[in-house]
Amino acid sequence: MMRNIKIVAFDADDTLWVNEDLFREAEDKFFKILAPYAEKAFLKEKLYSTEIKNLPLYGYGIKAFVLSMIETSLKISGNKISSSLIAEMINIGMTMLKQPVKLLPGALTAFKTLSQKYKLVVATKGDLLDQERKLHKSGLTKYLHHIEIMSEKNIRGYKTLMNRLGVMPQEFVMVGNSLRSDIMPVVKLGAKAVWIPYALTWQHENINTGKLPHGFIKVDKIEDLLKIL
Amino acid sequence: MMRNIKIVAFDADDTLWVNEDLFREAEDKFFKILAPYAEKAFLKEKLYSTEIKNLPLYGYGIKAFVLSMIETSLKISGNKISSSLIAEMINIGMTMLKQPVKLLPGALTAFKTLSQKYKLVVATKGDLLDQERKLHKSGLTKYLHHIEIMSEKNIRGYKTLMNRLGVMPQEFVMVGNSLRSDIMPVVKLGAKAVWIPYALTWQHENINTGKLPHGFIKVDKIEDLLKIL
Repeated sequence: MMRNIKIVAFDADDTLWVNEDLFREAEDKFFKILAPYAEKAFLKEKLYSTEIKNLPLYGYGIKAFVLSMIETSLKISGNKISSSLIAEMINIGMTMLKQPVKLLPGALTAFKTLSQKYKLVVATKGDLLDQERKLHKSGLTKYLHHIEIMSEKNIRGYKTLMNRLGVMPQEFVMVGNSLRSDIMPVVKLGAKAVWIPYALTWQHENINTGKLPHGFIKVDKIEDLLKIL
Repeated sequence: MMRNIKIVAFDADDTLWVNEDLFREAEDKFFKILAPYAEKAFLKEKLYSTEIKNLPLYGYGIKAFVLSMIETSLKISGNKISSSLIAEMINIGMTMLKQPVKLLPGALTAFKTLSQKYKLVVATKGDLLDQERKLHKSGLTKYLHHIEIMSEKNIRGYKTLMNRLGVMPQEFVMVGNSLRSDIMPVVKLGAKAVWIPYALTWQHENINTGKLPHGFIKVDKIEDLLKIL
């Protein structure tokens, strides 16, 4: 059992609801559109490197993803790609933004139970409006004490969050699927962290397992939290 | 003089720094690119209606603007526009995102002086990462108690902000250039508001002056705040 915890903070995408699957489906559509120009493995690499190049300027989220798809298609085709295919990419993004929210099994039960004992927080990165839309659709907001949408989940961001909530690191536990964003910076601050791996992880969120931090707990599914909290 | 004020909250775009000018310049580039297809007035109307249609899905900010430019160009040209022109639109967005921040005259003086007496807050809407970038570049963050980036500046958003800051409406004054976003919802909550009109206003932020709210103060420039606060 974890002791002295006041705040339980959750990542959202791929921790509370399905997200990476939507990006993978969208990428597959993109690879099909671009199939006349290049093979899937090449396209995947080019799209990823465009996304990483644009990250400091665009940040995370679906709009950034769509702009990076369009940019990649222009570069790979030498500006020869037909405009109707670019229209398809815009539609891919709109479809993603309109997608219903699919809660992961056990998320609602965990929220209902834990909210009776702790203050619950969602700390997520990505697009402000889109994350608010998903939270609203999720039906989880009524259990929440606070929502924090961060431009980057790093040490500074988590420090700001704990200050805002008025808690010490040892009173704070973060739950999420990304070692890079949800676990490492939190553990470095002396707070607690629970890692719940998700079946799919965006390449950018992977870390070299040689650098795995210590001092966090790994569980298989969100309901397992009820055994330790 | 305003009395019992604890928090002075500022809008950012076109209140603290130049913003609308960047969008106007970008639009002008867009109109030139699309000149072979339609006249400026027609393009302006089409771009605006696309932006408004996309607002609930995309929200505010430069990425949303670029996606709406591309969509408008595809529609107006019947998907005939050349891909190299779409590449130009992506570049317009990147240029906007890399732009230095031009503070409006008096903003720094006002912040320095008012921060000795009040807690200062920036409450802005738009793109999370881009607004953080501009705040950072502005040099104003060291005078700030809190930064709130809102997906929509409405009554609910301001209520949440005041709760988070732990102030009553009568202890809160909002300063901004948009009657729709900075003044009306704040006055409706019983808080105070100071309107500083900016030379350019995005059509969406205009309100019918027949519906002008009561109970706010209008000043000509940000330094005039020092006479009333």
